[in-house]
Amino acid sequence: MRGVAVIGVGVTKFGKHERTSAELFAEAAADALLDAELTPGAVQALYYGNVVGSETEHQLHTGPQAASILGIPAIPTTRFEAACASSHAAFRHAVMEIAAGVSDVVLVGGAERVLNVPTAESTEYFAYASDAIWEQTLGLTFPGVFALIARAHMEKYGTTEEQMAAVAVKNHKHGTLNPKAQFQKAITVEQVLQSAYIADPLKLFDCCPFTDGGAAVVLASEEVARKRTRAVRVLASAAASDWMLLGDKRDLARVPATERAAAAAYSQAGLRPADVDVVELHDCFTIAEIVATEGLGLFEPGAGGRAAAEGRTSLGGAIPVNPSGGLKAKGHPIGATGAAQIAEIVTQLRGEAGPRQVDEARVGLTHTLGGNTATVLVSLFGRD
Amino acid sequence: MRGVAVIGVGVTKFGKHERTSAELFAEAAADALLDAELTPGAVQALYYGNVVGSETEHQLHTGPQAASILGIPAIPTTRFEAACASSHAAFRHAVMEIAAGVSDVVLVGGAERVLNVPTAESTEYFAYASDAIWEQTLGLTFPGVFALIARAHMEKYGTTEEQMAAVAVKNHKHGTLNPKAQFQKAITVEQVLQSAYIADPLKLFDCCPFTDGGAAVVLASEEVARKRTRAVRVLASAAASDWMLLGDKRDLARVPATERAAAAAYSQAGLRPADVDVVELHDCFTIAEIVATEGLGLFEPGAGGRAAAEGRTSLGGAIPVNPSGGLKAKGHPIGATGAAQIAEIVTQLRGEAGPRQVDEARVGLTHTLGGNTATVLVSLFGRD
Repeated sequence: MRGVAVIGVGVTKFGKHERTSAELFAEAAADALLDAELTPGAVQALYYGNVVGSETEHQLHTGPQAASILGIPAIPTTRFEAACASSHAAFRHAVMEIAAGVSDVVLVGGAERVLNVPTAESTEYFAYASDAIWEQTLGLTFPGVFALIARAHMEKYGTTEEQMAAVAVKNHKHGTLNPKAQFQKAITVEQVLQSAYIADPLKLFDCCPFTDGGAAVVLASEEVARKRTRAVRVLASAAASDWMLLGDKRDLARVPATERAAAAAYSQAGLRPADVDVVELHDCFTIAEIVATEGLGLFEPGAGGRAAAEGRTSLGGAIPVNPSGGLKAKGHPIGATGAAQIAEIVTQLRGEAGPRQVDEARVGLTHTLGGNTATVLVSLFGRD
Repeated sequence: MRGVAVIGVGVTKFGKHERTSAELFAEAAADALLDAELTPGAVQALYYGNVVGSETEHQLHTGPQAASILGIPAIPTTRFEAACASSHAAFRHAVMEIAAGVSDVVLVGGAERVLNVPTAESTEYFAYASDAIWEQTLGLTFPGVFALIARAHMEKYGTTEEQMAAVAVKNHKHGTLNPKAQFQKAITVEQVLQSAYIADPLKLFDCCPFTDGGAAVVLASEEVARKRTRAVRVLASAAASDWMLLGDKRDLARVPATERAAAAAYSQAGLRPADVDVVELHDCFTIAEIVATEGLGLFEPGAGGRAAAEGRTSLGGAIPVNPSGGLKAKGHPIGATGAAQIAEIVTQLRGEAGPRQVDEARVGLTHTLGGNTATVLVSLFGRD
């Protein structure tokens, strides 16, 4: 299979918008195409992630809608839904299309609009990613899922609420350096600890927000990318799943799908965790970041909380995690999140991240999680 | 790229079921794996189509759910939604995964459950595949979309209500030969013409039903398929889109996405329309079959209605279309439809279709349409 590279990225401001998800995607896609120095007519296929559009916008069939709004209605379009990992799933399949030689230039992205409905409604729609019969009927929503994971991690490894708070503080600090972030305001450990409990032990500031936004990346074959000095190579893209039901998982303190997807990605790229210079990972809740840093092999199981509290994952630390501010501060427009993470890593590897630039970033990793830890995508990127 | 073959197929009875879509898929998948003489453990990836599960079952993230119910939770899973073409879109991407050498054995399928909610609700949810702002707000639902197409075709080509009725009569006749079909009852042209108007000129018997059901196919690389005498080769799989909005289309009497996807598929396979021996196509309404037979190049534009009335598309005719009964009589569980069409063509090419067998079927075609004719998939299959 031939090599694949990212040659353009675009992300909207994350936050509340009075625009449809298709319009948000169009803005991000236009920016990504401009960044790639291509016109829309160069795009041969569209891979698109969107999750709760049918609920919040009464809109299915968002693939051709997204292509139409870009004025390129004839190309093949596919919508992917893998809960919060949707546009990372779209990305992985787009890589296959180019690697297989089917296309040379593919547009990948996603968008979500959720702030047009009340929070209680969004929370319910997000819970559709849990099992309708065995989990939703119990009233289980995502803060509850990750509260169970946090309790298991605290019980097994001694992880503390202060360590989780350190993740929020770090990502908010990073968010102050990202003009696209939903929250650009520093917070303290005390503020996190004193915020209201949402699902014990998780408090308001342990949780990422609901967000509207769009993100897009332009993928190209190595032949097309060769002349472009800002191209970033895709070294690997892997997916893994796990039991849908939380009750079928043996150890809530670990995420086997992350471990499997990471192992596959490292193997594809011929790299080890120690080779990674910068990471964007799925911190929908602070505990999710801690568990992910362990599952990705950045730290031993159980050591993620301490590492965060010691600043090892901060900008300037041994392995900076979520320099963008992460889902926690940058925001989490679920269908756009995977593509936005990739856009950040590409920006970092290009050395174009400004005040949040990770020094000497040559290898980057993105990690996106869907549902009750049942879907995970991991991709690796490199510059020469 | 290496060759890909279908080595197993499975379809549930179509109709009303008191089971979830995941359970319906599991039944079809188990049958497909049995047909392929494989255990679930041999499956390396799952490509899954589902459309309105978030509405009718409050279930998103159906990829890992479908894998979990089969007891293979760790493999990569992806849910595809391309309106009624969802599992055909899943199929096309799965073909790429095998062609690219990423996997050797992939399970593809889809399922839908809609008869657990009232017809007015299903009709609204299906309409989410139209544009939320510019079309749904006008009250446009799919009978209305295809009534507009029928009027345009009648106006431009002189197609008659009797010719459309002939499609329904033919597909119901074929349905009597398919034990899995939702309707296994012959009807007459008079019955169609006397049935109630749903959206003038379309009457009740011009419309396919709402249906619960699941379908699955097992794909394998040519290396795996080589020893299997019942394997059917995938000769091509192509997708195309068109403007999302009906109002942006220049000529409602034609479906450019069908013409583009068909041209791409014929080109991939090195075949012409005249080489095709049997077709399963998207007859969500009788007029849709007429327009599709023209778009696929089986007949000249405008000649599809007459050809149907003359019996040229019936079993025993020049080019049998929808020997399974089609969406009209077999039923249309939207997320399962594309995979079910492929299962029928594979069964025909194997010579295992019993009383509905098309003689000397060596090349088969499937065509699936999504939304306001904005997504079309066309695949070609062959046996040696």
